[in-house]
Amino acid sequence: MLEADFKYIIDTLFALFAMVLIIFMVPGFAMLEAGLVRTKNVTSVLTVNVMIYAVASMAFLLLGFDLAFGSWESANLSIWAFFLFQMAFVGKTINIMSGGVSERVRIIPLSMYAVIMGAVIYPLVVNISWGADLLAGTLLDLEMYDLAGSTVIHSTGGWALLAAILIIGSRKGRYVNGAIRVIPASNIPLVVLGALLLWIGWFGFNGGSVGSISSVESANTVAKTIMNTNTAGLAGAIIAGILMHLRYKLFDITMILNGALGGLVAVTAAPDLYGTYEPIIIGAVGGALVVFAVPFFDRLQLDDPVGALSVHLVNGIWGTLAVGIFTDHSLLAQMKGIAVVGVFAFMTSYIVIFVINRFSRFRAEDDEQVQGMDVSECGVEAYPEFKRAI
Amino acid sequence: MLEADFKYIIDTLFALFAMVLIIFMVPGFAMLEAGLVRTKNVTSVLTVNVMIYAVASMAFLLLGFDLAFGSWESANLSIWAFFLFQMAFVGKTINIMSGGVSERVRIIPLSMYAVIMGAVIYPLVVNISWGADLLAGTLLDLEMYDLAGSTVIHSTGGWALLAAILIIGSRKGRYVNGAIRVIPASNIPLVVLGALLLWIGWFGFNGGSVGSISSVESANTVAKTIMNTNTAGLAGAIIAGILMHLRYKLFDITMILNGALGGLVAVTAAPDLYGTYEPIIIGAVGGALVVFAVPFFDRLQLDDPVGALSVHLVNGIWGTLAVGIFTDHSLLAQMKGIAVVGVFAFMTSYIVIFVINRFSRFRAEDDEQVQGMDVSECGVEAYPEFKRAI
Amino acid sequence: MLEADFKYIIDTLFALFAMVLIIFMVPGFAMLEAGLVRTKNVTSVLTVNVMIYAVASMAFLLLGFDLAFGSWESANLSIWAFFLFQMAFVGKTINIMSGGVSERVRIIPLSMYAVIMGAVIYPLVVNISWGADLLAGTLLDLEMYDLAGSTVIHSTGGWALLAAILIIGSRKGRYVNGAIRVIPASNIPLVVLGALLLWIGWFGFNGGSVGSISSVESANTVAKTIMNTNTAGLAGAIIAGILMHLRYKLFDITMILNGALGGLVAVTAAPDLYGTYEPIIIGAVGGALVVFAVPFFDRLQLDDPVGALSVHLVNGIWGTLAVGIFTDHSLLAQMKGIAVVGVFAFMTSYIVIFVINRFSRFRAEDDEQVQGMDVSECGVEAYPEFKRAI
Repeated sequence: MLEADFKYIIDTLFALFAMVLIIFMVPGFAMLEAGLVRTKNVTSVLTVNVMIYAVASMAFLLLGFDLAFGSWESANLSIWAFFLFQMAFVGKTINIMSGGVSERVRIIPLSMYAVIMGAVIYPLVVNISWGADLLAGTLLDLEMYDLAGSTVIHSTGGWALLAAILIIGSRKGRYVNGAIRVIPASNIPLVVLGALLLWIGWFGFNGGSVGSISSVESANTVAKTIMNTNTAGLAGAIIAGILMHLRYKLFDITMILNGALGGLVAVTAAPDLYGTYEPIIIGAVGGALVVFAVPFFDRLQLDDPVGALSVHLVNGIWGTLAVGIFTDHSLLAQMKGIAVVGVFAFMTSYIVIFVINRFSRFRAEDDEQVQGMDVSECGVEAYPEFKRAI
Repeated sequence: MLEADFKYIIDTLFALFAMVLIIFMVPGFAMLEAGLVRTKNVTSVLTVNVMIYAVASMAFLLLGFDLAFGSWESANLSIWAFFLFQMAFVGKTINIMSGGVSERVRIIPLSMYAVIMGAVIYPLVVNISWGADLLAGTLLDLEMYDLAGSTVIHSTGGWALLAAILIIGSRKGRYVNGAIRVIPASNIPLVVLGALLLWIGWFGFNGGSVGSISSVESANTVAKTIMNTNTAGLAGAIIAGILMHLRYKLFDITMILNGALGGLVAVTAAPDLYGTYEPIIIGAVGGALVVFAVPFFDRLQLDDPVGALSVHLVNGIWGTLAVGIFTDHSLLAQMKGIAVVGVFAFMTSYIVIFVINRFSRFRAEDDEQVQGMDVSECGVEAYPEFKRAI
Repeated sequence: MLEADFKYIIDTLFALFAMVLIIFMVPGFAMLEAGLVRTKNVTSVLTVNVMIYAVASMAFLLLGFDLAFGSWESANLSIWAFFLFQMAFVGKTINIMSGGVSERVRIIPLSMYAVIMGAVIYPLVVNISWGADLLAGTLLDLEMYDLAGSTVIHSTGGWALLAAILIIGSRKGRYVNGAIRVIPASNIPLVVLGALLLWIGWFGFNGGSVGSISSVESANTVAKTIMNTNTAGLAGAIIAGILMHLRYKLFDITMILNGALGGLVAVTAAPDLYGTYEPIIIGAVGGALVVFAVPFFDRLQLDDPVGALSVHLVNGIWGTLAVGIFTDHSLLAQMKGIAVVGVFAFMTSYIVIFVINRFSRFRAEDDEQVQGMDVSECGVEAYPEFKRAI
């Protein structure tokens, strides 16, 4: 057998393996968000998650993939496996955004946004960072190192979320006379299940982003990437646990899990480049950032029921900067990448959400929010047989 | 290393990978069905799912595999990996049947049926379509193309379900004086989790059915198969969402998910043969069929709490016909396959259920149904601490 | 391509695949235990599970791995993949222990114990059985055959649990005046989901423990190992179902699942060595042992809410003995291994728990237990919106 054939087969199998792991993030996000919102909005949040996967993936199939990768030819693995792996990413940026506007966002305008994100915005971000490289040769040409998307996926989703929150506003009753009303998560097992599925999906996300496992060197890189990814998640969870206990003498599992996710986001830019110990530092800083960012955004009255700004935007930026700090890559190039992608993602998302919002309002009416989105949007209660205590 | 050894190793690994994905359908079906039934029947439904996996797989190990594949010799991959992959399929046909008679079926007769299905009925269906080919040379020799079982798995399970519903009847209180009482699903997050696990399992189901990934050509076929499988699921979800919104101005997530599953069933007969766009049509038709078939079966008073007839029987038939429409395969051969397998699966299931029913009644008594099957069958309530609202 | 390179690549990919499956046991244990305890302790149990994964894996990274494998050099697969595979095991021994002291154990001392277990105790057990072999040449040199840890993982965790129960005691109100109060599981779907995720994880656990899939022979061994693993789980579930029905005329799903897990534990010592039928016997005995051991430990007032002593300790011992009965391996060597590991695991755990307990009490106060651990330990209720029936 030709060595090239061997590599083609192994790398196709590996891309499919990685892609399947990433697809576990679909139930991952769905369960995490369903657990974090109130029971009256659970069906709506779940429906949003399923619709995003459906429409954004379809948009990427019909248009986005070509826009991102141009007339991409695959000599190294099956083009279909490469497509599947890339498609698995698309919904994630939108999940980040949709999670943060839960409990007041309507499904139709959100689905429209998902189509545009999957067909145009996200593909253009990929184009200038990983793909056909539209900006090549221009002043804005990016030389940012971002293996698996601290910026390309996570800050992009985070900036989109910030734009969405600015337009859609906070949930009714969340901030009243400057006071912040705490709204507890309704189903902690789902939160844990969802976060752990995301964690597992991350192995495919980051490991698969190495792109090949078919040489001894790349096999080592893939394994190291997955190890470092996991290590940063461990560190993020531990530091968040310690900080919560120092401050409140309590272990808040939602914060511990968000700390883990923050660590995972932060390491994502270069898990292939770090040694064994950098991911501990990067993940720990990531977990700590989440603990401090969550109340910070709340003070700014940027209402984000799932902590997505803290996990994805803050740590997407931190993780991309960390590459410039802990490796030989230029910190300036990393900052330029953060800025260019950030400005683009924020502005395009803001414009698209603003325009859609003119003819299909994103925000549910106050009485719909009080009643719960499940009634007005879905007609299906999540737990119709369980008597409500609150 | 010999090329044959390389292929043997890779294809064994691939079969194990595919098999593991399919096994995720065990919790997939379990969660989907547990979410769709009322809380008083949740433990019973879950117990049925676990027992089916246990007894049907054991029956297939002890008898069914030999009956399906005869004195099968494996030169191309480990016989044990091949066995595991095939074994992972067995329970699915029975899950389809058991889900549709939920909330009134008793566990012991159902387990007996599962043994016979796993030991004899399903293996015989496999024999005449994918296996040792008992009917070879006869008038009934099948030339149907059915890569991963639109007919062999899904219609077979659907016909078995139809037989079971005809014998067991509808749930007490479901149809009263010609009116249909709507019985809402009790736990939507479980429904979503279950459906998404099924979706992921389908990648193994269909991808693994290609049988090999150890050449450049087969690697491409596997990747294309998984992409097309996914595409049909996307299309089914989208069309179901659109139709529900057009009709009710609401996004009914259970219907959207059943639409996705309908699309997945429909594409299953030939995801390896289609181009990029056929699966969109096939999946969309599949999703639409589910939306129309669910109320249709209800008008016929064929009580099916999970929509299995619509998802699996209707789309199993549609998907098998689609091969004759969208590829060069003979539509007549497809129709003959549907008919032969359908008559065989329906009749054998009807007879077996009828006979078992004479000494171990399938249908729980009315008062057991009112009280809930969890008490009478399991002695374990699903959510003993949650106060019931209805 | 060099054959050695091919093997390196394939075995690295295989180790990563197996590791990912094992990581599914993290949500597996979490969901299983969250479902088995009362709602007032669900968040606490989940937090314990996440913290164990975080701190024990980190301890293994920083210290344990070196202690277990010494100056281990990897010529056959990526050292990072080997690390990840081994790391995935660590938390399991602690999960076994923590599950059995649920509903009264405090998080901080348990986390301290998890650090010591992950850094020292478990690595030493691995050292003398699978690793650098400290005891080589001594009278205690182990010749036990234990492929994937019936003793090394499961009895070790079980002995640790026994030590913990002896020190921590039973839950308040569990045994009153010699009577045993039955405390029902609060969420059966989570129990089923968790147990099935464990089952799937076991394929990686046992299959991956073969260590290589890169020859025809080892590919066969891996596939046979997974098949035999599954078979024992099937047999354990079936026999537990039959026994429960014979005794109570009811199918208690928690016992059926514990029967399956018992069968899986029992086969784990040598799934690679058995033929097709031994796993049926070994698994069936395992399932039966669980059914009899659960009430037995209750009569001894060893309070174990999840049945971990019955599943892991009893069947860890049975499975290790079974190797001496059903294969050519010396029964005496198996018994010596059980004894040496048992004495070591029990004594070290007892001492460590005893010492930690002096300055950070393991046991929650009675009023904390009555109120529920979620309030006192986490400040986060699992299901705040659901009205409690009991």
